[in-house]
Amino acid sequence: MTVYLVGAGPGDADLVTVRGARLIAAADVIVHDRLVDRSVLELAPPSAELIDVGKEPGRSTSQSMINDLLVSLGRRYENVVRLKGGDPFVFGRGGEEMIALRAAGVHCDVVPGVTSAFAGPLAAGVPVTHRGLSRGVTVVTGHIEGTDDGYFRRLANPDLSLVVLMGVAARSAIASQLIDGGLSSETPVAVIESAWTRRESVTRALLRDLGALAVASPAIIVIGPCAALSVREIFDETSALV
Amino acid sequence: MTVYLVGAGPGDADLVTVRGARLIAAADVIVHDRLVDRSVLELAPPSAELIDVGKEPGRSTSQSMINDLLVSLGRRYENVVRLKGGDPFVFGRGGEEMIALRAAGVHCDVVPGVTSAFAGPLAAGVPVTHRGLSRGVTVVTGHIEGTDDGYFRRLANPDLSLVVLMGVAARSAIASQLIDGGLSSETPVAVIESAWTRRESVTRALLRDLGALAVASPAIIVIGPCAALSVREIFDETSALV
Repeated sequence: MTVYLVGAGPGDADLVTVRGARLIAAADVIVHDRLVDRSVLELAPPSAELIDVGKEPGRSTSQSMINDLLVSLGRRYENVVRLKGGDPFVFGRGGEEMIALRAAGVHCDVVPGVTSAFAGPLAAGVPVTHRGLSRGVTVVTGHIEGTDDGYFRRLANPDLSLVVLMGVAARSAIASQLIDGGLSSETPVAVIESAWTRRESVTRALLRDLGALAVASPAIIVIGPCAALSVREIFDETSALV
Repeated sequence: MTVYLVGAGPGDADLVTVRGARLIAAADVIVHDRLVDRSVLELAPPSAELIDVGKEPGRSTSQSMINDLLVSLGRRYENVVRLKGGDPFVFGRGGEEMIALRAAGVHCDVVPGVTSAFAGPLAAGVPVTHRGLSRGVTVVTGHIEGTDDGYFRRLANPDLSLVVLMGVAARSAIASQLIDGGLSSETPVAVIESAWTRRESVTRALLRDLGALAVASPAIIVIGPCAALSVREIFDETSALV
C-alpha cells in the first residue's frame, strides 16, 4: 500500500529512470498529468487503471481533489503511481501531495525525474550552464501575479541563464520586465516547444523580440547567452528519438 | 562510432534513465567522473574499459585532455559513453565536450540525467519549489572568484530557493554575502552529503550558522524556506534504496 510519486521525465519513455519504469510496469493504478507523454503511459501493464487529472483551463481537477484521490487509492491498492511530467518537485506540487498522504497515514515515496527545465533546453542543443557564458541557472514559471509587476525585473541577472516554464502567455511582459531590470535587449532567447517528442520545434530570437514570437504552449523559454548555443545536432524527425 | 554524453543521475544506478542504462550496458569504453556512483559503473559489461578522469585536487585530468581523449576514443570504438554525475549540462561541461567532438567530426549525442541539484535536496525531503514558500529555484556552484565578492550578494532573493553545488569550502562567505544582500539570517538551510547513496546524511540549520556547520564534500546546500520541509520519510539505512 504505497503511493509512488514518479517523475516521467521530459518526454519520451526512454528518459524515465530505471526505477520509475519498473514502478510504472508494476502499478495497479496510475494517476497522471496531461503533459505526461503517451509513450510513458504505454509502460503500464494492460491491467492498470489510468486516471488523467491533467490540468487544462476549464476542466482541471483541483489540487485538493487530487490529494483526496491519492489518499483513497493508496488505501485500496498495493502500488499506486502518481506520474508527473519532468520532476515531481519542480513546480509539480509533489511536496503538497506527499504532505497530504503522510497526514492521512498513507505510505509514500518519491522517484525523481529528469526535469524538463534542463532537458528541454538541451533538446534544442542549449546547455543551461556553460563556462564563460553562465555561472548558474534560475528556473521559474511564467505565472505573474496581477499585483507583482516587478517579479521578473528582480530576476534580471546577466550571470545566470533563466529558464521559464509555462511562460508563453506572459512572454511579452516577461521580456519587458527583464529589460527594465537591466538585461540587454539583445540577450539570446530560445523557445522549445514539445521537447523530446516528435513534435519538437525550436525558435531562436533576441529578448526584445520574444513578445512577438509565434510560439504555443507547452513550451520552455531559455534566456541568456547560452540560448545562442547549439551543441547538439538536431536530427531529422525520424531519427530524433533513436 | 558515437560518443554518448550520459547523465548518471544523483547516485544509485536505479536513477539512471532507461536509455542511459541501455547505452552503458552496450559500451565498449566508459569515461567517467569521480562522483559517479560505483553501482552505475556496475551496469557496464565486463568487457568494457573504464577510464576514470575524476577531478580531484592535485590529480585531475584537464578539460582539454578529456576532450582529446573523447575524440580519440570516438574514432576507435563503436560505442563510447562519457558518464557524468547528475546531468551532463548542469555544471558538467557537457557543452564543451560536445563542441570539441563536433569540431573533430566525431558523432555525439546526449542523454540527460536526473540532476543532483534537485534530486539531492529531495533525498532529504526538501522540494526545491513549494507553493507559498518558493516561486522558483536558482542553481549555482560555490566557486567564488577572488575579485568578485558581490556574486552571492546578487543572488539574495527571498522568492527563490538557492541550491549551491560544491559550496562546502566557501559556505561561510556564501552565508555572509547572502545576508549582506538582504536575505534573513534565519533563512532555513539544509546540507545533504552523499545524497541517494548509503552514506547519505542531512544537516539542517539557519543561514547564520551555515559557516560553522561540520559538513564535508561532496554536499549540496539548499537555502530558503523550503529547506525546513521534510516531505519524505527518511528511511533507515537498509531500506533507503529499496
